[in-house]
Formats: sequence, structure tokens, C-alpha cells
Amino acid sequence: MTSRCIDDTCPVARSVAILDGRWTMLVIRDLLRGTRRFSELRSSLDGISPKTLTDRLRALEEHGLVERRQYAEIPPRVEYSLTARGAELEPVIEALATWGGGERSLR
Amino acid sequence: MTSRCIDDTCPVARSVAILDGRWTMLVIRDLLRGTRRFSELRSSLDGISPKTLTDRLRALEEHGLVERRQYAEIPPRVEYSLTARGAELEPVIEALATWGGGERSLR
Repeated sequence: MTSRCIDDTCPVARSVAILDGRWTMLVIRDLLRGTRRFSELRSSLDGISPKTLTDRLRALEEHGLVERRQYAEIPPRVEYSLTARGAELEPVIEALATWGGGERSLR
Repeated sequence: MTSRCIDDTCPVARSVAILDGRWTMLVIRDLLRGTRRFSELRSSLDGISPKTLTDRLRALEEHGLVERRQYAEIPPRVEYSLTARGAELEPVIEALATWGGGERSLR
């Protein structure tokens, strides 16, 4: 999809350009429940490959929606959490949950 | 993405499985503004190919979100509009517009 097609004037198009990709919304759904490790995300996102999860998390980091924290431990511990901007997506996730026919599962 | 990964219990996953694909949300955005012809959608969805638009409209029809009406005219006239179920996506589009930084452009 060429960058030309990004309709800068439309906030919906801007959002969709950032949130593109099915797994992206599900990663955000899970991080709305709190800080998660890579392995925790992999197990809650049934079917996602390590590479796809890595790519999605990196893209979300680049967009300023996710924060990655690494702890100097043996073995190294890495955690992911939503930034304030990322957490502002909660209404989108709630709207998707309502449309999908039910309450989003509790935190 | 394997069907195994569809998390039937989660309404967000169900929604995302149906709404997957960047153009899908933008087609819905445009049909929320009213009935459109194929050519009108092509011009408002800058950069979309005829094949992709055809595929997206067909998938939305199969999911019961879009209705396709053909008029026995010369040349034939085909129009697309949201079903009631499709129109229930307005809160999702509104939430995306708000997050994207502005009001969704007026109908």
C-alpha cells in the first residue's frame, strides 16, 4: 500500500495506518490488561509467531504506543507496557468488544 | 493466519477477525456517510486497486455488513450501503477518529 494512499486529513485513516494488522489490536488488548513479558504475550496470542510478535511490538514502540523495559538480570527480563498514548486506545478496544458481542474480558 | 488462532471467546478477537485489513475500516468509514457506487468508493479510497475494493466489498457482504444493490439500467448501476449490523460499527469508527486526533469528517 503506497504511502500516497495515507489520507492525512482523515483521523480514521491516520489511526488505521498505525493500527494496521490484525495482531496489533490484540497486542493492545492484552497490554491494556497490564505489563506483559514476551512469553506471556505469545501464549495469550494463540497462533502468533515470535517474529510477527517481535515486529508488531517494535512497530508499536516506534509509534510511541508501547514501552519496552529490560532488566539487568540473569536471565535478562524484558517487559512491555502501553504508554499513555497507547492506553488512549482503550475506547477503540471497548468499541470493538461491544460490536463483537460482549464485554471485553476483565483485567 | 490459521483459524486456530481465532479466540472465539474474545469479542475483540472476533471483531478484528472480521474487520481485518486496513481498507476494510476505510470502506466502512465511507459507507457510514451513505450509499456509494463502486467508482465513488474508488475515488475516496485513494490508492486502492479495483481488485482489492471488490474483495473487501465481497467479504463485507458475506459478513452481512454491506448490501449490494444492482439496478436494471443501461449501463447497469450498482450501489453499496451498510446493513444495520454494518452501521453498528459507527462507535468503532468514531473511537478511531478521536484517537487519530480529530472529529471524523462530516457526512
